[in-house]
Amino acid sequence: MIYAVIMAGGQGTRLWPQSRERKPKQLWEILNGKSMLQDTVDRVFPLIPLHQILIITAEPFYEQIRDQLPQLPVRNLILEPMGRSTAPCVGLAALYINQPDACMVVLASDHVIRDQEEFRRLLQIAIDMALQGENLVTFGIKPQEPETGFGYIRRGAEIKPEVYKVRQFTEKPDYPTAQRFLASGEYYWNSGMFVWKVSTLMTMIERYLPDLSQGLMQIKPAIGSPDEQRVITEVFAKLKSVSIDYGIMEKADATYVVPGDFGWNDVGSWAAMPEVWGVNPEGNTCQGTIMTLDSHGNIVYTSDGLTALIGVENLIVVKVQDTVLVCAKDQAQKVRELVDQLKAQGLTEYL
Amino acid sequence: MIYAVIMAGGQGTRLWPQSRERKPKQLWEILNGKSMLQDTVDRVFPLIPLHQILIITAEPFYEQIRDQLPQLPVRNLILEPMGRSTAPCVGLAALYINQPDACMVVLASDHVIRDQEEFRRLLQIAIDMALQGENLVTFGIKPQEPETGFGYIRRGAEIKPEVYKVRQFTEKPDYPTAQRFLASGEYYWNSGMFVWKVSTLMTMIERYLPDLSQGLMQIKPAIGSPDEQRVITEVFAKLKSVSIDYGIMEKADATYVVPGDFGWNDVGSWAAMPEVWGVNPEGNTCQGTIMTLDSHGNIVYTSDGLTALIGVENLIVVKVQDTVLVCAKDQAQKVRELVDQLKAQGLTEYL
Repeated sequence: MIYAVIMAGGQGTRLWPQSRERKPKQLWEILNGKSMLQDTVDRVFPLIPLHQILIITAEPFYEQIRDQLPQLPVRNLILEPMGRSTAPCVGLAALYINQPDACMVVLASDHVIRDQEEFRRLLQIAIDMALQGENLVTFGIKPQEPETGFGYIRRGAEIKPEVYKVRQFTEKPDYPTAQRFLASGEYYWNSGMFVWKVSTLMTMIERYLPDLSQGLMQIKPAIGSPDEQRVITEVFAKLKSVSIDYGIMEKADATYVVPGDFGWNDVGSWAAMPEVWGVNPEGNTCQGTIMTLDSHGNIVYTSDGLTALIGVENLIVVKVQDTVLVCAKDQAQKVRELVDQLKAQGLTEYL
Repeated sequence: MIYAVIMAGGQGTRLWPQSRERKPKQLWEILNGKSMLQDTVDRVFPLIPLHQILIITAEPFYEQIRDQLPQLPVRNLILEPMGRSTAPCVGLAALYINQPDACMVVLASDHVIRDQEEFRRLLQIAIDMALQGENLVTFGIKPQEPETGFGYIRRGAEIKPEVYKVRQFTEKPDYPTAQRFLASGEYYWNSGMFVWKVSTLMTMIERYLPDLSQGLMQIKPAIGSPDEQRVITEVFAKLKSVSIDYGIMEKADATYVVPGDFGWNDVGSWAAMPEVWGVNPEGNTCQGTIMTLDSHGNIVYTSDGLTALIGVENLIVVKVQDTVLVCAKDQAQKVRELVDQLKAQGLTEYL
């Protein structure tokens, strides 16, 4: 049995003002009217039937996800009472699967993958590797540039075709280090997608995250009972936030990487949109009703109404309903800082 | 008797998207909730009573002007059936005044004047000069920079304190010429404000614009009759567009200029807004709910909602309802071109 676990509780702050507290990035209909969450489901569906696809999300997004995925069995939409990063999230999903020998494919809900066929081909290889033993398998993305926003995975020996032993997981590097990683050819971007057996995950959580393991053991008997949500909330409230990467992958031995080159994009900021939406002959990336005059290299999105540009270059210009963002293209990461300032100033209606 | 004639039929295309076909520049509440038209009335009111203030405008603006100036006698709001530039507009107003010895102060409705006291002091000097004979008096603005967007007036001899004979009216100069004008100290910007007796204007129209004179003679007997609007429309339809400057001032002999330094600003484009609204310590001019991060030298206006800037310089960013303009500050003149393109593409809902 193969299960997909799609994590859909994040915010995507750097895509403000499109991504909002009530309508986060993964639910934005970015791809010709389809959201990245819907696309993630469609991507694995040919390999994994719908009743084996679980989505973990937060309460504010529940109804929107039901609307976007009406065919998903109700029971497959799991609520996290609060964000505690990826390890508790995935541990909770494992309890719902409740089959030690089942294979779990852990996916983000807010990434774009262009070559779906190739993704599924490599997913099958990762699944085979995960089922072969107590293996933790991850996808490594061939880096295109010295990106400092991702963790990197250094590969070791090739174990079998297209599967490498992981030599090292690294945190987000500084720029010179990222350049060195890129030049070496031995490093991949950590895409945050994982494959393993439920039993493997539970063993690793027991070994490396005993607090989480104990918490999950408290939750387990409550699943399906009237106390389910209450117990999960109580346990999660006491858990520390810990990621799979930091909590397990960096510590475990049997970690493997399947290098992938399938047009992956984490849509981490507005600067990612040219890759998603394409670039027109004037060098602009435009979605919505947009007029440009003597303007080049811009990324322009308008959810409604009209946006007009005159004589400007390398800007991000976003209009979503009553909110406008104008940002230098090379400062797309600072959108998070701006959102923090909005919060600090109590401008909550724009969050 | 002194009459003010305020011309309020223009469009102000370069202030798009604030200035629209249905809500032009002069009706925009730019000055702490007051429009430039209201401000123009308030400016002359201490000198000229309300029943001697005439406003000439176009039909689409009629109701809005009544709303902005409820105290104005209905009869003082004159409709031009179509725009034919300033000479026919002013000629029509003269018919409504219908007192040869009355003094006419012709004003634009879409300029800002900061020092109203000084303006009125000089206005009184201009009125005295106009009443002294068959004189055409204009205000010349001391140039601040080699502006190429205005006509210039070269002064001749000082006739009496603060009144000069006009040596020459010039069309909009090229940049080197404008620099030379500025350096000479003999040139003023043509502000488009005029003072003369009704009889003087009529004589000049008869002399230099016989077609217009004939047209006005056709209209004259219809004023006050049920045929009034029909006759005006018929006559205006046949008239050529001609400005006061080109049609009369450049040709007449008895032209005088009163130099003025009263904080005049024609608000000709968004680039004028720092002078109207001021500049904050970060070097930005902001009106509306605006957040800036590492951004300097920008002009930002948002009619509603929020506009946020990150890491940008010397931009004009305007959000009016569902329309956004982002324009390099030194290309503010191209807004007109953009509006033409919107027209050409049939995007009429944004005009």
